[in-house]
Amino acid sequence: MTAIIIDGKARGLALRTTVAAGVAEFAAAHGRAPGLSVVLVGQDPASAVYVRMKGVATREAGMVSAEHILPAETSEPELLALIAALNADPTVDGILVQLPLPRHIDTDRVLAAVDPAKDVDGFHPINVGKLSAGLDALVPCTPAGCLLLILEALGDISGKEALVIGRSNIVGKPMAALLLAKSATVTIAHSRTRDLAAHVARAEIVVAAVGVAGLVKGEWIRPGACVIDVGTNRVTGADGKARLVGDIEFEPARARAGWITPVPGGVGPMTIAGLLANTLQAAKARVS
Amino acid sequence: MTAIIIDGKARGLALRTTVAAGVAEFAAAHGRAPGLSVVLVGQDPASAVYVRMKGVATREAGMVSAEHILPAETSEPELLALIAALNADPTVDGILVQLPLPRHIDTDRVLAAVDPAKDVDGFHPINVGKLSAGLDALVPCTPAGCLLLILEALGDISGKEALVIGRSNIVGKPMAALLLAKSATVTIAHSRTRDLAAHVARAEIVVAAVGVAGLVKGEWIRPGACVIDVGTNRVTGADGKARLVGDIEFEPARARAGWITPVPGGVGPMTIAGLLANTLQAAKARVS
Ligand SMILES: NC(=O)c1ccc[n+]([C@@H]2O[C@H](COP(=O)([O-])OP(=O)(O)OC[C@H]3O[C@@H](n4cnc5c(N)ncnc54)[C@H](OP(=O)(O)O)[C@@H]3O)[C@@H](O)[C@H]2O)c1
Ligand SMILES: NC(=O)c1ccc[n+]([C@@H]2O[C@H](COP(=O)([O-])OP(=O)(O)OC[C@H]3O[C@@H](n4cnc5c(N)ncnc54)[C@H](OP(=O)(O)O)[C@@H]3O)[C@@H](O)[C@H]2O)c1
Repeated sequence: MTAIIIDGKARGLALRTTVAAGVAEFAAAHGRAPGLSVVLVGQDPASAVYVRMKGVATREAGMVSAEHILPAETSEPELLALIAALNADPTVDGILVQLPLPRHIDTDRVLAAVDPAKDVDGFHPINVGKLSAGLDALVPCTPAGCLLLILEALGDISGKEALVIGRSNIVGKPMAALLLAKSATVTIAHSRTRDLAAHVARAEIVVAAVGVAGLVKGEWIRPGACVIDVGTNRVTGADGKARLVGDIEFEPARARAGWITPVPGGVGPMTIAGLLANTLQAAKARVS
Repeated sequence: MTAIIIDGKARGLALRTTVAAGVAEFAAAHGRAPGLSVVLVGQDPASAVYVRMKGVATREAGMVSAEHILPAETSEPELLALIAALNADPTVDGILVQLPLPRHIDTDRVLAAVDPAKDVDGFHPINVGKLSAGLDALVPCTPAGCLLLILEALGDISGKEALVIGRSNIVGKPMAALLLAKSATVTIAHSRTRDLAAHVARAEIVVAAVGVAGLVKGEWIRPGACVIDVGTNRVTGADGKARLVGDIEFEPARARAGWITPVPGGVGPMTIAGLLANTLQAAKARVS
């Protein structure tokens, strides 16, 4: 068997087109487009690239994007004051604080300061709790995008064996909550897990969100499984050139899997599309 | 091998003694004992028994117990008004709304109305989210009690294979979050799970929270496993007498397990002790 390669780029684009249509409808009904404010503290180059990409995508979807780029020395009270202002601004529907924040700032305190109704990253404890409890919530974009890809590949996943590798608050834990809500039998593995190979071999759905190039060997994959690779690792090839690879050995996994996401072009484009979808969802909820 | 039978009654009593000492210290320092308010709507007989037991245990630990018993016809606004008053009362450190509530009341709305700092059941979405994210939180009493028993039996559980059967917001999901936080590899099974026997056979830790008498067969148990039975099921024996049994076939499981909790006398007494511990924790946090 050779896996179907899931085209996250095309799927992300389709989602963005749907969101853009919803944005036009929203603007016609409410006389303003939904607004997303992105806050970046410091000049981490990768973060700066993400923030720029998010701004472009937001505007392309017809929404209002504001980027607040603050110096690395910004104090926590200054950052909290900006967030309070954005919380109070009725034209701002979504607030995203780009992580990581500089070390002198308490990330948990900052994330908890964002109005949960504007928390388009889904990181506020109340959104985390609502997701776990099965209540309406803003859901973190990356795992939400992964779930869309999985459901499109497999349809109903009730009773399927799912393995999530990684237990971060950003990807692994919300991914497990989403799969459980769809009635998969969910296992969460992490750096302390013994015999990862055996867990992978049982899994009909594998989501890897680790950040270790090629951690998951192709021969571990259960034949026909749906394999989602969230990892993005920069490696230097034999030719001396840098390139991006996932956590899963792509070619050997592809030879066994039923579906597989490439890196790049798999999960990444779904994440940005999910952010736009969350911003529209937040805007609609705020006017309803 | 014959399992060590975990004496939840003795362990619960020990925890209650520790809490009572903490209560005495708190009272000496702050001139008042911690206060727990329990709210019961309607006259479900099992709920009435639980509320009475909680009141007795609270007073025995030296705390102030208030039981608010409302008629079944109480409206949601009336209940919310009582909760608002308890939220505002500085002598109330813990608020517990006994579930289930009558059908005409929205349980989620009521649980979300409790001040998270007084939410000794740990059911408020913000406490659920904090538990998931690894932040300080008030944790649901039953899974917290199970975790204590597991850690006392096994010590460090990092890397161990844990299976939680049941995914309720009250037991299964917080149990999984607690085991994951202690770095077990956690699988969550439920009614849609296929081949539960195979999952049980792999597990070094099994927590069953289902409510189906004898669902887990003794022969499924991995030799030496730590087996925690949360289920409480009333069955009629061959002699025509009603008795309580768990979700796990006790005698055959005991013959294979390393540790096992009986029903009754296992998890049950830990739940009430955990409630008292949470009330003291809430009281301390509120004055600090
Ligand atoms: N495509 C996208 O849009 C997107 C979005 C977000 C993240 N990512 C990528 O996804 C990856 C994960 O991101 P993250 O934020 O979740 O990372 P993270 O916070 O660093 O978490 C990594 C997780 O992997 C686990 N882990 C580490 N080594 C392991 C091993 N040998 N075996 C099994 N598990 C292991 C860690 O376990 P412990 O908890 O035990 O340490 C941790 O839970 C990164 O490559 C990141 O760049 C991509
Ligand atoms: N000792 C104590 O202090 C204490 C405290 C709380 C609860 N309990 C007892 O613990 C038990 C569970 O309570 P709860 O509130 O969590 O119950 P619940 O809300 O009814 O949840 C039961 C869970 O079991 C799952 N389940 C049902 N049938 C199953 C099957 N055949 N195989 C695998 N899973 C199955 C259900 O799956 P689905 O989600 O797919 O429906 C559900 O997730 C009850 O007996 C309760 O009385 C005891």
